[in-house]
Amino acid sequence: MLASFDARHRSRQNPTTMPSYSARLAERISQTNTCALVGIDPRFEMLPEPIVAAWREKEATANKQSNSEHYVQINATEEFCCRLIDVVAPLVPAVKPQVAFFEQLGPDGLSMLQRVIRHARNQGLIVIADAKRGDIGSTATAYANSWLAGEDPDAAPWPADCLTVNPYLGGDSLAPFVKAASDRGAGLYVLVRTSNPGAADFQDRKTEGQTLFNGVAAMVERLSVETLDGDYGQVGAVVGATWPQELKELRAAMPHTLLLVPGYGSQGGTAKDVMSATDANGQGAIINSSRAINFAHLREPYAREFGAARWEEAVEAATKAMIADLATGAA
Amino acid sequence: MLASFDARHRSRQNPTTMPSYSARLAERISQTNTCALVGIDPRFEMLPEPIVAAWREKEATANKQSNSEHYVQINATEEFCCRLIDVVAPLVPAVKPQVAFFEQLGPDGLSMLQRVIRHARNQGLIVIADAKRGDIGSTATAYANSWLAGEDPDAAPWPADCLTVNPYLGGDSLAPFVKAASDRGAGLYVLVRTSNPGAADFQDRKTEGQTLFNGVAAMVERLSVETLDGDYGQVGAVVGATWPQELKELRAAMPHTLLLVPGYGSQGGTAKDVMSATDANGQGAIINSSRAINFAHLREPYAREFGAARWEEAVEAATKAMIADLATGAA
Repeated sequence: MLASFDARHRSRQNPTTMPSYSARLAERISQTNTCALVGIDPRFEMLPEPIVAAWREKEATANKQSNSEHYVQINATEEFCCRLIDVVAPLVPAVKPQVAFFEQLGPDGLSMLQRVIRHARNQGLIVIADAKRGDIGSTATAYANSWLAGEDPDAAPWPADCLTVNPYLGGDSLAPFVKAASDRGAGLYVLVRTSNPGAADFQDRKTEGQTLFNGVAAMVERLSVETLDGDYGQVGAVVGATWPQELKELRAAMPHTLLLVPGYGSQGGTAKDVMSATDANGQGAIINSSRAINFAHLREPYAREFGAARWEEAVEAATKAMIADLATGAA
Repeated sequence: MLASFDARHRSRQNPTTMPSYSARLAERISQTNTCALVGIDPRFEMLPEPIVAAWREKEATANKQSNSEHYVQINATEEFCCRLIDVVAPLVPAVKPQVAFFEQLGPDGLSMLQRVIRHARNQGLIVIADAKRGDIGSTATAYANSWLAGEDPDAAPWPADCLTVNPYLGGDSLAPFVKAASDRGAGLYVLVRTSNPGAADFQDRKTEGQTLFNGVAAMVERLSVETLDGDYGQVGAVVGATWPQELKELRAAMPHTLLLVPGYGSQGGTAKDVMSATDANGQGAIINSSRAINFAHLREPYAREFGAARWEEAVEAATKAMIADLATGAA
């Protein structure tokens, strides 16, 4: 697979010799032999106690700053994220940091996210920034310039390989993101059918026999075909695992579109539900789990077996269990 | 008007004695006697040359850092934004920084945005962070915690009075933002019908005789009624000026909803088009202009009269012209 990678992918769609996002993701899925995606959702109140306690102690003895709790949060979150990345890097193709949890820590939180993203890339992981950005014209370009580095880790302040985007503003709001992604060997996942109950409010509205999400899916598939490299394009779709029938239909309606599937695990989607998202080669989709992996030490059987002190072993066991479960679903 | 402010508004909806966003905005509109809103869109390539040149010279003599162009961008942008704020603060009720232009400057750009927001608040302006965030559950709460300070300028890293949000993920994605806004005397503007041509792609889709944007508008009006303080609630709507007929219909369909109207000026909306958004008291809507005010020194008649050297006079003249134009439209 690797031998033919250069020949098949380089300089096909791209004016430079840069491999595309779809090609790089396909390679990582082949290497790791799984489509499991680990979301990075560092909710401070759920971080393993030993990490937080150690930083509190350090702050208490070293500095007496009035905002020392802020630095405890920054440092403990960074240590947690980087150690989590070290555990999962040999196991999965990609990670998906949830930008909101870094943003709420202010500019220091977003500086820390830069370091976390660079660390993940250095470990060979593909990084999908889950920021759900969306705006028009030059404003959309500014967001793309913020997040879409693609191949070149110096090409954006937060050098992700891929970004999630919101389609509500329409096709001309997606175009600047698609152009930036294509130019840089980066990718996008457009929200199509999300996994939350409220998704039904607007996404499921029927128009001439077609739901709104079908309409968004048709646009995304067209953009995928326009950016095709190998079997898939650079413009993917977010489709929740919580509605297996819709997932199956959307997979069929978007044959050239990479899927990002949230809702497996904590939100109730099973391996059987989600595996219709991948193709016969186990490609074309990545299945996300965040909390169930990040905070495996808080739930059974890992809480009893490992607990907070051995949280990395809990993460590793939970990740391997997810990979095995997804393999069963595919079989 | 001011004398009765406390009696009418304090502790009406809010458990604390904090005045609501809608009450504070109404007060500012009364004080300034206009519904003009100045967007802050610091596109670096359009900043007045003297500001940029001065910072380049300072960087060239003081430091020989490899990333000195980055600091030129940060410093020049901050100086521009703060001086712009000083010019418009006595004239208009509110400003709307476009977060994407700060985000693309990286964490330093977002630190600078904190200072710009604080400066605007200190000048008495209401600050609307145009970030168009949207996500579900605790992730939405994290975004609200990032941006919604409301009355207390220490309550969020970016202490805005108000935030723009995207409704695509549905009602349960708006709920955490609405709760945070109500708790803090802050506000929201939900994207309903945007001003770009692509808005038609999804927002105009007809479902059972109703467009998607009508459906979103109905939800927003309901949320406004639930958070009513005075004539309007805390959950506003973004409705573009580029489709005057839709604007008029949406105003009628959302009688308790504050409107934020983009698309006046550079995008083609006229004073007559937009003034159907306000009520008989000149309240209930704010009309945005960004580029035409920010970069007035680049367009006639201000380019010839003032030029880049006297850009603040150009900003002042353009702002006053907009205020006068809106007053004509209302008459």
